[in-house]
Amino acid sequence: MSKSNEVVEALAKIFDADTGIYQQRGFQRRIGFGSRPALVHIDLANAWTRPGHAFSCDEMDVIIPSVQRLNEAGRAKGVPIVYTTTAYTNTEGKNGDTGLWRFKIPVELLHVDDPAVQIDDRIAPVPDDLVIVKKRASGFHGTNLSSHLNAHGVDTVILTGVTMAGCVRHTCEDAIAEGFRPIVVREAVGDRVPGVVEWNLFDIDAKFGDVEPLERVLAYLDEIAPFTSRAEVA
Amino acid sequence: MSKSNEVVEALAKIFDADTGIYQQRGFQRRIGFGSRPALVHIDLANAWTRPGHAFSCDEMDVIIPSVQRLNEAGRAKGVPIVYTTTAYTNTEGKNGDTGLWRFKIPVELLHVDDPAVQIDDRIAPVPDDLVIVKKRASGFHGTNLSSHLNAHGVDTVILTGVTMAGCVRHTCEDAIAEGFRPIVVREAVGDRVPGVVEWNLFDIDAKFGDVEPLERVLAYLDEIAPFTSRAEVA
Amino acid sequence: MSKSNEVVEALAKIFDADTGIYQQRGFQRRIGFGSRPALVHIDLANAWTRPGHAFSCDEMDVIIPSVQRLNEAGRAKGVPIVYTTTAYTNTEGKNGDTGLWRFKIPVELLHVDDPAVQIDDRIAPVPDDLVIVKKRASGFHGTNLSSHLNAHGVDTVILTGVTMAGCVRHTCEDAIAEGFRPIVVREAVGDRVPGVVEWNLFDIDAKFGDVEPLERVLAYLDEIAPFTSRAEVA
Amino acid sequence: MSKSNEVVEALAKIFDADTGIYQQRGFQRRIGFGSRPALVHIDLANAWTRPGHAFSCDEMDVIIPSVQRLNEAGRAKGVPIVYTTTAYTNTEGKNGDTGLWRFKIPVELLHVDDPAVQIDDRIAPVPDDLVIVKKRASGFHGTNLSSHLNAHGVDTVILTGVTMAGCVRHTCEDAIAEGFRPIVVREAVGDRVPGVVEWNLFDIDAKFGDVEPLERVLAYLDEIAPFTSRAEVA
Repeated sequence: MSKSNEVVEALAKIFDADTGIYQQRGFQRRIGFGSRPALVHIDLANAWTRPGHAFSCDEMDVIIPSVQRLNEAGRAKGVPIVYTTTAYTNTEGKNGDTGLWRFKIPVELLHVDDPAVQIDDRIAPVPDDLVIVKKRASGFHGTNLSSHLNAHGVDTVILTGVTMAGCVRHTCEDAIAEGFRPIVVREAVGDRVPGVVEWNLFDIDAKFGDVEPLERVLAYLDEIAPFTSRAEVA
Repeated sequence: MSKSNEVVEALAKIFDADTGIYQQRGFQRRIGFGSRPALVHIDLANAWTRPGHAFSCDEMDVIIPSVQRLNEAGRAKGVPIVYTTTAYTNTEGKNGDTGLWRFKIPVELLHVDDPAVQIDDRIAPVPDDLVIVKKRASGFHGTNLSSHLNAHGVDTVILTGVTMAGCVRHTCEDAIAEGFRPIVVREAVGDRVPGVVEWNLFDIDAKFGDVEPLERVLAYLDEIAPFTSRAEVA
Repeated sequence: MSKSNEVVEALAKIFDADTGIYQQRGFQRRIGFGSRPALVHIDLANAWTRPGHAFSCDEMDVIIPSVQRLNEAGRAKGVPIVYTTTAYTNTEGKNGDTGLWRFKIPVELLHVDDPAVQIDDRIAPVPDDLVIVKKRASGFHGTNLSSHLNAHGVDTVILTGVTMAGCVRHTCEDAIAEGFRPIVVREAVGDRVPGVVEWNLFDIDAKFGDVEPLERVLAYLDEIAPFTSRAEVA
Repeated sequence: MSKSNEVVEALAKIFDADTGIYQQRGFQRRIGFGSRPALVHIDLANAWTRPGHAFSCDEMDVIIPSVQRLNEAGRAKGVPIVYTTTAYTNTEGKNGDTGLWRFKIPVELLHVDDPAVQIDDRIAPVPDDLVIVKKRASGFHGTNLSSHLNAHGVDTVILTGVTMAGCVRHTCEDAIAEGFRPIVVREAVGDRVPGVVEWNLFDIDAKFGDVEPLERVLAYLDEIAPFTSRAEVA
């Protein structure tokens, strides 16, 4: 048995015990899909999707094709698509814009002019998509994401990307807090160390959003009505 | 060996492997203490601190005394102390204020008039403390916490309370995002299911804040200068 | 001619000249009504609606009946109704919650336990309404207002209350920023010094929201479909 | 007497009457300067500072030199300097990022690739400055401004720029709400229609921040201690 399988099995036992308690207490409910979704892809830029960078993540051979299929299904219905990346204009100076985060993780490696922070061209944005350059973990924090989705009448946020233990989780927590239904696509999220994908998906599904398989999310996107613009004066 | 020990041991193995990767990549740095801390106690109200409620948490025989000692040390230096609780004014009506969170967890049980949502009287607030009634997981989301701390010139947020997999984690993530140094007190945080305290502390220490033992935080509070008020016109 | 009329006439001349420039430049557009409104009543508590307080405002003989009619029309359609008041739990202590605002205006007079900060009983909230105790000028700042409206799928914010030069204006600016269509009801807003209602309505109508007469807003509320709850799992 | 003088005189009479009431009620207090200021320049980009654009503003022969002097004094002390501009990546498409603001003002003219939205090169940013591309009126809304200033321990926001009836006012209201002391530099703010500079400065000075002459702000910057970085681990 591989090491990775051992981790998954050890965690599965813990999740089983926890699920018993959660179910008894009334947690782990289903939030469900709304009718006006947006796709939000977290930090699928080269520093995370390609090997050799401090931020590189695993499982891109599954994540990238999953995002491609979600984008295809979403674009067919005209749903808003948002990408985030994390990048800074001043990673060296004394009045830099990394905030306090550089005291925990190597954000000084993410300069806005570095191709590493550009969205992976296998899932390149089209002009109608929005690319948000965020400074913190959550796609909502210090960005126009919430007001953008709100202005377009979005009620559901379909989340993909990396990392589960960082930016995807914080974005998911903020999404439900802001009033959006978070759906995390199981095959389309990842991280760079063993175990953290599993336990963060477990926590999220218990409390913050629904973790759903790719095929279920694709079926949902196929079923919904085309996304009509709210961008008209009454 | 008890079941709980098994969980801790299984997780410890995973954390060891992950730590190797994180250290190599430049994560798990120390953020350190600033000079103007506040104590922020998350959801230490009866529904969480007493048995018999859907929200009841474990380890209160350690958590409550830890918070008492932190408050004593903090009050000796005049540092701001903030408590949060989670409660709603309209848990039944169609225009209720639980947002979408009731589709995941039983927040309908947390009415603002129920003694269950009052802060545990073993760690009762004094008039100079601030009690925030929040609606979402993070103590910062939809509250005046950030502007309160900012107005008082706070630079460090010492976090306690419950739950690690929910409100404490989300608050910690927001704290560093807002520009405060988060310090999570190891003995003063808890949850209601096995494992989640450990893995959430692991994620936080890797990326969002420093997890520190109680004695170290008490020593820090003993060492710092008294908290001088910023509430004076220049 | 009364002094008040003089003020109005002097301002009218300025507004005419400004309107010429704004129209030529493409400002002063109409944002229009959406289909899912909420009523948001700013600071119509006794300190503002009754005489004898530092915060007392004028024109309550027009404002209060206007709000009564709006509430009647809104309740007939089940639209969410939100009231704000401004109040503090710690107006004296060194770690008080007034922030820096007490260095500009007498917020130390607004203690949360004082009947002065309760909503005027001529327009008393019913249990299904939300009452937000805010600390700052905007109803959105440091409150759950945005996530509350967003969770209920609101797209239009109908604003009333006081003061135009303070809390109503800041709330209106935040409303459009958050992605809601702001409609300010001409007869239902006021202030405590001459001129400021007029010039703030002028600025708002030019840039942030539509200023509409009461009868138009009542007609809109009569015409719209009943407000269906978004509070159901898909 | 010129038309502009007539406007100023008519307004001065109103302000005098209002001031009497405000003073009696305890408004119009002084917030004063703190010890760690930042300079925040609102929308001093070509579309606003140069003639011929729908957003062009007046008085640039006074505003630009004032900002130059403030920058010189601020840089001598190492205080953080932040510029904002307002620009969009998708001003045409159905999922555009202008939010609802295009229903009030011609934001569709402000594409992020247009030189019109670049900061005026007479007051060009240096690498250590932060340039924020905002989408809404306030420099704080949907941006990292608050967390940036907070991370650097800033307590005072010195405001310049345009327009007084729009972005400068909203930024000032948010600044005090967030816990920063707002100082608006009288000679360094402007707008594009008569009267609005005067009445918005009047409202701000009464309730949200101190309006100060340039020379007083320059003297303050000369007197303060150099801005020491908070960007060090304890």
